[in-house]
Amino acid sequence: MPSSLNIRPATVTDLPLILSFIKKLADYEKLPHQVVATEEILRVSLFGPKPQAECLLAFLDDAPVGFGIFFHNFSTFLGRHCLYLEDLFVVPEKRGHGVGKALLQRLAAIAVERGCGRFEWAVLDWNESAIEFYRSIGATMLDDWRIFRLSGEALQRMAKEEKEK
Amino acid sequence: MPSSLNIRPATVTDLPLILSFIKKLADYEKLPHQVVATEEILRVSLFGPKPQAECLLAFLDDAPVGFGIFFHNFSTFLGRHCLYLEDLFVVPEKRGHGVGKALLQRLAAIAVERGCGRFEWAVLDWNESAIEFYRSIGATMLDDWRIFRLSGEALQRMAKEEKEK
Repeated sequence: MPSSLNIRPATVTDLPLILSFIKKLADYEKLPHQVVATEEILRVSLFGPKPQAECLLAFLDDAPVGFGIFFHNFSTFLGRHCLYLEDLFVVPEKRGHGVGKALLQRLAAIAVERGCGRFEWAVLDWNESAIEFYRSIGATMLDDWRIFRLSGEALQRMAKEEKEK
Repeated sequence: MPSSLNIRPATVTDLPLILSFIKKLADYEKLPHQVVATEEILRVSLFGPKPQAECLLAFLDDAPVGFGIFFHNFSTFLGRHCLYLEDLFVVPEKRGHGVGKALLQRLAAIAVERGCGRFEWAVLDWNESAIEFYRSIGATMLDDWRIFRLSGEALQRMAKEEKEK
């Protein structure tokens, strides 16, 4: 019997599951020390009065196997909002069943429905299987862009310089 | 007499100025063909009932010399919103007056005020002067991340696959 794959938006009762996926993803990306999210923080961010992101959950034969967290970003050149997939994760033991592709298809449909000009996400450059998969669905790697981050003490210092003007 | 530098949030009457800066930025990035934004599109995106991004303008001796367009993105690991600077631009003839740094300081202060865990932006890898400047203020380049983009026909095709399930 073929597996039954189902995708639905997360609700507030899914918070423990979402947090468990976030921690599994961080382990996979070798960044577990970066996770400071808690159920209470996510309750406000995802399900509060002003949600900052949305979450889709994927189930294979009713067992949760993956998730995607996304939000709208903005393209200056297009002048409009776009869809940005912050995280996509499928538990390693359930890869190869089309769960990741199904999540991307659902997100592409959401992007088109909402009038988003494009749909983007980031990938670690050593994750060759993910890169191959993304190319196979027609996505393009923006090879010449790099991300800069200001955080921690450097962020506080810049903010302080502004206050002291 | 030293130049007087002033930064303020853009208002709807600044739309022609904002669009002119977007076009100048696209020329600088060698991507002028990618600009499809118009004043009418930006009016909705920046000043409509549900703004998708915010804009700061910089003035040197009352003459407009630069802008920054930013929005909130979301970090799954932090579980909260962060500040993302989509575009930063200073007209080439007014560089070296601290306008870019002043815009970044104002944005850092906004990030801290709003409880953002971090402040990020992207840069083209050939833009060495920008990269040197960003490093000088304590920002870190995330060398191992690459952006993927699904747009145009590939995006429509994925959305169609979802609809045909």
